[in-house]
Amino acid sequence: MVNEGIFLERKRRALERLREEGADEDVRDIIEKINSHEDFFTTSSCSGRIILLHLPAVGAKKEARFLGKWHRTVTKEEVMEVLGEDFRSGEIWFISQSPIIHAVARHLEAAERLLKVAISAGFKYSGIKSLRDKIVVEIISTERMDVPLGKGGVLFCDEAYIDFLVERANFLLLRGKDKLKRLKNGIEKW
Amino acid sequence: MVNEGIFLERKRRALERLREEGADEDVRDIIEKINSHEDFFTTSSCSGRIILLHLPAVGAKKEARFLGKWHRTVTKEEVMEVLGEDFRSGEIWFISQSPIIHAVARHLEAAERLLKVAISAGFKYSGIKSLRDKIVVEIISTERMDVPLGKGGVLFCDEAYIDFLVERANFLLLRGKDKLKRLKNGIEKW
Repeated sequence: MVNEGIFLERKRRALERLREEGADEDVRDIIEKINSHEDFFTTSSCSGRIILLHLPAVGAKKEARFLGKWHRTVTKEEVMEVLGEDFRSGEIWFISQSPIIHAVARHLEAAERLLKVAISAGFKYSGIKSLRDKIVVEIISTERMDVPLGKGGVLFCDEAYIDFLVERANFLLLRGKDKLKRLKNGIEKW
Repeated sequence: MVNEGIFLERKRRALERLREEGADEDVRDIIEKINSHEDFFTTSSCSGRIILLHLPAVGAKKEARFLGKWHRTVTKEEVMEVLGEDFRSGEIWFISQSPIIHAVARHLEAAERLLKVAISAGFKYSGIKSLRDKIVVEIISTERMDVPLGKGGVLFCDEAYIDFLVERANFLLLRGKDKLKRLKNGIEKW
């Protein structure tokens, strides 16, 4: 178990970094709530997002480049505009991602409590990612869509399909954001 | 922490259930390896799969019905055959899923060791899902594709796109299965 002084020093630095770098609007309330609790601090967060990714080679997610990134619902026009660019190689993926929050807990009991509240709020993929040096709770949900649109400069999708995908991506994004509200309520009831 | 007798009795029952119900071929070696270790037993496993799902309503994953389910690579023809059925309502999703294993650990140190080996083998979404009554490690990877194909009886995809999706699904499935081998090697080196 990490000692008290180290935990507090890490929390101080994490909060300083958060002040400097900020956080997405839709996740600010909830991470403020978590950070106001003496047993926790957050190290990263995302309120959920819709992205268009370019992978230079098949499956090369590490070298992925963001063509578009939105922490809000998108329109078909916004997506089509990005897809109008010229891609000669690699793959294009259209992705809707759940919110994600990483929180460090002071001790195991606190980690377990946060994990339970998160799972109850619908963040069913949550788990404890490390125990020894830092006790890290990952809060993440199931709302997800990972759609390859084309490769080698060829898009396999027509506009009607993009329209449908945008509708699904927006639906999933909003459901993820609803769960953030439920998580905030859950933490408030502690 | 759960006492020794309860752990052993749960392990005995889990192994009995495994003998009765069996496991996918591609995951048998690895769960045998985990179960042969005195600190662990597995409660569920899947070697990765490609599925076609029918959701009766938008986002109603709980009421999902499997139209097709394969723990191996698929052909376009197999997928097209299922898609040729008559769907008047709801949504159709084409999904490729990573392997998943749930293992109960005797104590926290064992859980952490398994988690580390799993993450090193490429199962980057792994985590500890519960601590109190049972210490459950979930081993899961990032290979994933979740593609909505259509709704309300309308498929938005043509055959060329299905062909492309099948190729991507197979690629991800095989990469997940490769990681199972790396996990087995990692556990053998303990």
